[in-house]
Amino acid sequence: MKQFLGDDFLLNSKVAEELYHDFAKQMPIIDYHNHLPPEDIANDRHFTDITAAWLAGDHYKWRAMRAFGVDESYITGDQPSQLKFQKWSEVVPYTIRNPLYHWTHLELRRYFNINDILSPDTADSIYNQTKEAFSDKDKGCQGLLEMMNVELLCTTDDPTDDLRYHQQIAASNLRVKVLPTFRPDKALTFESAKAFKEYLHKLEAIAGQKVSNIEDYLSALESRIDFFHAHGCRLSDVSFGSLPQLLDSQKVDKHFEVLLAGGKLEPIEMESLQAYLLLELCKMYHARGWAQQFHLGVLRNNNERAFRELGPDTGFDSMGDFSHAITLSRFLSRLDNTDQLARTILYNLNPRDNDLFATMAGNYQDGKIRGKIQFGTGWWFLDQKMGMEAQINSLSNMGLLSCFVGMLTDSRSFLSFPRHEYFRRVLCNLIGQDVHNGELPHDAPFLGTIVKDICYHNAKNYFQFE
Amino acid sequence: MKQFLGDDFLLNSKVAEELYHDFAKQMPIIDYHNHLPPEDIANDRHFTDITAAWLAGDHYKWRAMRAFGVDESYITGDQPSQLKFQKWSEVVPYTIRNPLYHWTHLELRRYFNINDILSPDTADSIYNQTKEAFSDKDKGCQGLLEMMNVELLCTTDDPTDDLRYHQQIAASNLRVKVLPTFRPDKALTFESAKAFKEYLHKLEAIAGQKVSNIEDYLSALESRIDFFHAHGCRLSDVSFGSLPQLLDSQKVDKHFEVLLAGGKLEPIEMESLQAYLLLELCKMYHARGWAQQFHLGVLRNNNERAFRELGPDTGFDSMGDFSHAITLSRFLSRLDNTDQLARTILYNLNPRDNDLFATMAGNYQDGKIRGKIQFGTGWWFLDQKMGMEAQINSLSNMGLLSCFVGMLTDSRSFLSFPRHEYFRRVLCNLIGQDVHNGELPHDAPFLGTIVKDICYHNAKNYFQFE
Amino acid sequence: MKQFLGDDFLLNSKVAEELYHDFAKQMPIIDYHNHLPPEDIANDRHFTDITAAWLAGDHYKWRAMRAFGVDESYITGDQPSQLKFQKWSEVVPYTIRNPLYHWTHLELRRYFNINDILSPDTADSIYNQTKEAFSDKDKGCQGLLEMMNVELLCTTDDPTDDLRYHQQIAASNLRVKVLPTFRPDKALTFESAKAFKEYLHKLEAIAGQKVSNIEDYLSALESRIDFFHAHGCRLSDVSFGSLPQLLDSQKVDKHFEVLLAGGKLEPIEMESLQAYLLLELCKMYHARGWAQQFHLGVLRNNNERAFRELGPDTGFDSMGDFSHAITLSRFLSRLDNTDQLARTILYNLNPRDNDLFATMAGNYQDGKIRGKIQFGTGWWFLDQKMGMEAQINSLSNMGLLSCFVGMLTDSRSFLSFPRHEYFRRVLCNLIGQDVHNGELPHDAPFLGTIVKDICYHNAKNYFQFE
Repeated sequence: MKQFLGDDFLLNSKVAEELYHDFAKQMPIIDYHNHLPPEDIANDRHFTDITAAWLAGDHYKWRAMRAFGVDESYITGDQPSQLKFQKWSEVVPYTIRNPLYHWTHLELRRYFNINDILSPDTADSIYNQTKEAFSDKDKGCQGLLEMMNVELLCTTDDPTDDLRYHQQIAASNLRVKVLPTFRPDKALTFESAKAFKEYLHKLEAIAGQKVSNIEDYLSALESRIDFFHAHGCRLSDVSFGSLPQLLDSQKVDKHFEVLLAGGKLEPIEMESLQAYLLLELCKMYHARGWAQQFHLGVLRNNNERAFRELGPDTGFDSMGDFSHAITLSRFLSRLDNTDQLARTILYNLNPRDNDLFATMAGNYQDGKIRGKIQFGTGWWFLDQKMGMEAQINSLSNMGLLSCFVGMLTDSRSFLSFPRHEYFRRVLCNLIGQDVHNGELPHDAPFLGTIVKDICYHNAKNYFQFE
Repeated sequence: MKQFLGDDFLLNSKVAEELYHDFAKQMPIIDYHNHLPPEDIANDRHFTDITAAWLAGDHYKWRAMRAFGVDESYITGDQPSQLKFQKWSEVVPYTIRNPLYHWTHLELRRYFNINDILSPDTADSIYNQTKEAFSDKDKGCQGLLEMMNVELLCTTDDPTDDLRYHQQIAASNLRVKVLPTFRPDKALTFESAKAFKEYLHKLEAIAGQKVSNIEDYLSALESRIDFFHAHGCRLSDVSFGSLPQLLDSQKVDKHFEVLLAGGKLEPIEMESLQAYLLLELCKMYHARGWAQQFHLGVLRNNNERAFRELGPDTGFDSMGDFSHAITLSRFLSRLDNTDQLARTILYNLNPRDNDLFATMAGNYQDGKIRGKIQFGTGWWFLDQKMGMEAQINSLSNMGLLSCFVGMLTDSRSFLSFPRHEYFRRVLCNLIGQDVHNGELPHDAPFLGTIVKDICYHNAKNYFQFE
Repeated sequence: MKQFLGDDFLLNSKVAEELYHDFAKQMPIIDYHNHLPPEDIANDRHFTDITAAWLAGDHYKWRAMRAFGVDESYITGDQPSQLKFQKWSEVVPYTIRNPLYHWTHLELRRYFNINDILSPDTADSIYNQTKEAFSDKDKGCQGLLEMMNVELLCTTDDPTDDLRYHQQIAASNLRVKVLPTFRPDKALTFESAKAFKEYLHKLEAIAGQKVSNIEDYLSALESRIDFFHAHGCRLSDVSFGSLPQLLDSQKVDKHFEVLLAGGKLEPIEMESLQAYLLLELCKMYHARGWAQQFHLGVLRNNNERAFRELGPDTGFDSMGDFSHAITLSRFLSRLDNTDQLARTILYNLNPRDNDLFATMAGNYQDGKIRGKIQFGTGWWFLDQKMGMEAQINSLSNMGLLSCFVGMLTDSRSFLSFPRHEYFRRVLCNLIGQDVHNGELPHDAPFLGTIVKDICYHNAKNYFQFE
């Protein structure tokens, strides 16, 4: 029987241990997609306690608490900090087999050297130990990143962001490189005339140009792309249930005029407009040598009551079951057809589509850039052992695992970087298992090279960060 | 090499053995969903032979026999009982790796102490041994339930059922509590004007009220809900390919009038009417503190010839590939929005949707009832080892396994209760494996508590049976 | 640790070893579906080198090369043969965990006795050794088939094929029986008026009859079916994204007249016409005792640029995510309803549909032919270890594995027959594992019989080849 969370956690063969300890472990982290607030990094925020670091914004934990029957006042409400943590400590033992159980204890070990299991018995002690640790000058947000050997990270930023914190970080002594990612979701959201108008004003102000038609709109966005580029951005992102389809490309300028006049679009018109704008943005990314990310398959805000009371991103999103194949195929082909398809990473949320996404990526490999089209690592609900294994296996069977750009945290939490360790253990275990079973030759030096590529070098080479 | 069906069947680690033998095995059974005929329980029916108990109504076995090339006369036809059993005995060895192989031999062992493998060589002996056993006074339907330590079971009953057998059972000395489940599928089926009219007359008669409009219809159904409630019912059920959508709520009263007048509805009208009625029923369930079950994803009666010759539920149903996410989301949100969402168990038939269902459940956990929205155990085709494991793993990764209300038989057979044992072994094996691999701490007392919760206490607490 | 590709490759228990070595290994091969060119068999073509045998037509390898960043000139371009092979040798080590890695080294061992790992270090040696081997008189296409103990194979042929090479083979001394398969995909393709006209002329010419209406068209095709039948054909095939639906059966003759007049059909008209014609063909197959294959789920030609430059079947196809259940159900039921449903093999490309296909097959088992409706072996992207295991497991859980007609290569390559060995190892391993775990009785003689059935006898009995 293996020790819980021991040195060889998740490593179930000698080769797996060798690959992890001799190759994977030492590699720096390139966390090319997360949702960390740059302000916290710039100001080296120190969390007041573990509740602030763990529970203030983590909707994974909120969902578990609600499922366990914890009152909302202990979740997003105004109960005292330590009481909230105690409530969470009651839930943790009951999260066995959920990734939260592993994340929680891995984070306690790696950031705080605490080997206890979190439960009501240990809650106060852990609360106090971590509170003291956070007061240490090296345990601010910057220190937390450096502890984890993070070399570079990319935040997720709206086109209207002035990137002032990125500037502040760039001008500081922080050894971690922090770059923005261009994520224009709000620029592509037209459900509410009011919200669009507000967004438009913000964009006009920061771009310093008036928007009277669709060309202006794209030109304002392009000026922001250039601004982001000047701040080191080489990566975009966007998220949809399924990619929008360009159903009536002729009239998108008219549709945009309707929006400008405060009018409402039919769903099909909105979708065409989104598709057109996204295609044009993708061409701009390609022209600048950026990579682009598509996060597909989510169905958001499923609970009207919760949305009304708590707003978006509070733990009420889930997987959708959209059809992706034809839409993705046409969209990517259209860009490829004029040689304007940027490096692309496709992430899917519903694992039933893993194999589809992995084969779809293969259709646009152009023989010019190694691993140009990537099937991205397990996203959101899939960011757990079985989800990672499923993604790695689909990619292995349908494409080239060796060219994979690997893991990212996608996280809002500064304490989530042990997920890279977790991914690396899972990766080494799968490869090691194959060697153990005689399905791969026992050539650790070569397999170790591939492991190091996936943990670090592939991302380093793929993204053209300067 | 392990012994076939031995004491440690399906238990592949020391911890798994410990969890099963020390915790799971002893727990009574709450079989909260099955299709047992209450008449057979009330009258303590004694089967004439194993053919009557096994082959008279089990469309799983019928499908296997047809696939093996057995003539229909031996399946649903009029061949003599012992010949039918001999035919089945020819098929059994060829069902290896199908759950029928395990069910068959587990049932022979647990009910009859017969350790033989069923085959043409053993068929006559087994036929005779079981025939003799059935003649024993303790081997009536009541005795079979008591043998298996069944504490409570819920049958599945139409709103027009007079529950006379439930009354008879309640008045008897049977130690097993037998409660009805309100399943209004027929009240929501409008394909045939003739069938609807017949159903309506039946409902009017038993409810003692005339139905002239949709309000009357709902009121008649509500009076049946109250009648069921008075007989201990705390649970409803309904099955659809996918949940109906409320597309034009304004006109459902008109649609109902068309039906009353013997007319036909357009598919979209029928769907809206179904959705409206189901929503109203769900509110009634909530008002009474009931739980509700949704069985989704089946495509029924795929073989016209067989339907014509044999009718429904004869082994010609299969998985559908419906889209569920948006429909489920809107339906559940609508009820939650007015705080009228009852405890809900979501079952899906196509395992490609496991993760979707597990995440969808999480959207409506309200922090008031532990495990309020359940992703239900593997249904129908999924009621086998891999199906159970997949359901447990999805639930573990996407929600809280610890709050799971666990297993049920969903069966028409009095001999199917060893499926609870089977489920418990699978459950203990998965948790035990995690401990063995260092993915969970070796804390058998605590993990044993969770196992006992899933096997018994969670269901006990979740359903408000009196 | 097991040796890579050793004697017990993929066999992870003693029982698995026993089942493979004592039962599976010795069975001849019936490769009832592949895309080998009959001309090459008839003329006993000798490949000039391994590039010609491996790289000239294998779009699996092409996709891997493109994903690795290899320039198209080394793939489908005009680089010298040995340079192309060197490029491929650079890619091979980076295909670890992809089936190409196993296929490559298994083929080197089984056809050439080369145990080296292909890499730039070994490329020239392997190129030269294999070149010399191909010059051997026993290493022509005929010898390659005989080496692998192939008893019978079915090629895939258009209705307008004159089968001259099949005649030539039949008249030769070749011990391998080579039969045609009737695959009318082009006869059901109406996107291009020009292509249809050309096809029609070809059909008229070879059938020796003028086509003036849809009856003529079907009669011309039927005459080809009879011609194929006379040449030993007992099997048809067809491939669609999803089966076409018969939406307006009344007007299909009109739609066909539009086509004859060089006009264009609406998508729904085209689909109805396809469905009607396919149904009629299926009835003809049934009337002659043929089996029929449906290959469903592919989305072809996803890359417009590549299609323009390289044409179809060059590595730009992927999985679709079509809905299959209702369409399949209606199509099969319609044929069954008039007792005109032939033996049918259903293959799916997206593994999310495995369980659906396996249960759908069960709806049309008629109790007259053992295993009449088959859920076919892992197709295309699924033709790898996990894909095979998933197919075997779905079939096991949802149907009768014991009645499975087993493996085929579906290949364009004369070197791909070790895939039968691979499949047999996977099969024996799954059954062996179950015995090892106590989930099946340790009855090797009986399980060995089932293994031999799946490897050979089931196909032998299922297809009515003479």
